[in-house]
Amino acid sequence: MSESTPLFQRAAIIGVGLIGSSLARVIRRDGLAGEVVGCMADAEGAAKLLSLDIVDRVTLDPAEAVAGADLVIIATPIGAYPAVAAAIAPALAKGAIVTDVGSVKQAVIRDLRPVLPEGVHLVPGHPIAGTEHSGPESGSAGLFDGRWCILTPPPGTDEDALAKIRRLWESAGSKVEIMDAEHHDKVLAMTSHLPHLIAYTIVGTATDLEESLQSEVIKFSAGGFRDFTRIAGSNPVMWRDIFLNNREAVLEMVQRFSEDLNALQRFIRWGEADKLEELFTRTREIRRSVIEAKQA
Amino acid sequence: MSESTPLFQRAAIIGVGLIGSSLARVIRRDGLAGEVVGCMADAEGAAKLLSLDIVDRVTLDPAEAVAGADLVIIATPIGAYPAVAAAIAPALAKGAIVTDVGSVKQAVIRDLRPVLPEGVHLVPGHPIAGTEHSGPESGSAGLFDGRWCILTPPPGTDEDALAKIRRLWESAGSKVEIMDAEHHDKVLAMTSHLPHLIAYTIVGTATDLEESLQSEVIKFSAGGFRDFTRIAGSNPVMWRDIFLNNREAVLEMVQRFSEDLNALQRFIRWGEADKLEELFTRTREIRRSVIEAKQA
Repeated sequence: MSESTPLFQRAAIIGVGLIGSSLARVIRRDGLAGEVVGCMADAEGAAKLLSLDIVDRVTLDPAEAVAGADLVIIATPIGAYPAVAAAIAPALAKGAIVTDVGSVKQAVIRDLRPVLPEGVHLVPGHPIAGTEHSGPESGSAGLFDGRWCILTPPPGTDEDALAKIRRLWESAGSKVEIMDAEHHDKVLAMTSHLPHLIAYTIVGTATDLEESLQSEVIKFSAGGFRDFTRIAGSNPVMWRDIFLNNREAVLEMVQRFSEDLNALQRFIRWGEADKLEELFTRTREIRRSVIEAKQA
Repeated sequence: MSESTPLFQRAAIIGVGLIGSSLARVIRRDGLAGEVVGCMADAEGAAKLLSLDIVDRVTLDPAEAVAGADLVIIATPIGAYPAVAAAIAPALAKGAIVTDVGSVKQAVIRDLRPVLPEGVHLVPGHPIAGTEHSGPESGSAGLFDGRWCILTPPPGTDEDALAKIRRLWESAGSKVEIMDAEHHDKVLAMTSHLPHLIAYTIVGTATDLEESLQSEVIKFSAGGFRDFTRIAGSNPVMWRDIFLNNREAVLEMVQRFSEDLNALQRFIRWGEADKLEELFTRTREIRRSVIEAKQA
């Protein structure tokens, strides 16, 4: 930003973990806010955040954090949204923009919208970026660079508020896509929630093996299993909340997956070589599409 | 190798793809054989291999390839082993060592052992290394560096032959592990075959989505799906053969996985937050073990 007036006067980030701290770093790097206040759930987290020196002030009180802020970024696990919304609602300034970074969007709108006071703008967002690491020390200003950020503004969202949130993400290097919340939840159920569910399952299956086998599974994990452990190393609370808040879409995708797995299992049992090869050739095409879409 | 006498006088590689060509590069780099002969399945492959200049001679005839060779490396998809064994058996020199790089070991021993003539040594092997790319142009001499290579010599295997194959892999930079073939097949069913089966399934599930959803699944694949497409982009024929030749172990692991997935599905449907969090915390520990085992 070359302007002398920053995009926001005061930004409050509620829950400064991997994503929140990465945004804090972007905001400081690009001078997007006059002041950044971080809100943490406990004293340990607050001390850690303070030591990183990426926000101007740290508090444990969400209401104190949002007082006087014209931008509020909710970046807690989504199960905490109802409590956060109740805590900040009385303290929100008129005209403030509330956004978030949660991986589910219908439930977020359901939890936040009725609680926010008149004159406060809700612009829900979801950056498709992350690592399996958690905590403010794991963040980086480059995390969103070249990645998609999906915004799901409800009908009637203030255009200026939407434009400002778009500028925030574009400043972070993201490509911004506007999408209906229901459609978002369906797409993400397939691209992200189902893969995580499956990775958690297979790594869980491995932990139930007899001990001698289990140590060898870890030793020889490079054959494919390793990639699943990375995904299954993601934040447990965050993912618990995602599955519980995108229940219907996730269950539908699991159901489809299970049916397909049963079919494949049957091909193997009955030695249907042609059908296996046909499927594996088809999936290889998808890999090519992913590479062509520059997502690999 | 600093010695003037190479480890082998003539090495024949039957099926010079990703793995075979990587071994050819190692053998040439380290001077492990006086001559290397590559055998390809068709003229197109032979022309490609010739142009890479990583072997001394190229032939389409397995019997011609192994004539006079003291090392024979079978590196075709394992479904081709019976035909390869039948073709090379009459031409194998007495004292020759036959090894392979297949991902299943019991079936390989079953297919090769009865066909090989008296005085020929069978030392089955399996490097835990690879990429989703196939073909001789995809190989590299560094592919095996720091990776495990599992050897599964049947009881009574000649010690000198085993020692020579061990030196071949150690020269490639691999850590060598000796294992019973049945145990190998069980460990790999969990660490490699099940992950591939699941990745193929989920990518297949995505290809059945309505077209509008499918293009967005590719666009937003960075949320986890992308990692599965990489695995599901592996060589279709090779993987068809692996599943069909390690059927019992794979089906047992799929069964365990399916039961665990059903349980997880139920936790989500009934909102059992504690059980989800407990599982996800447990799987995170496995990720730590993988990192500590330096497999990540």
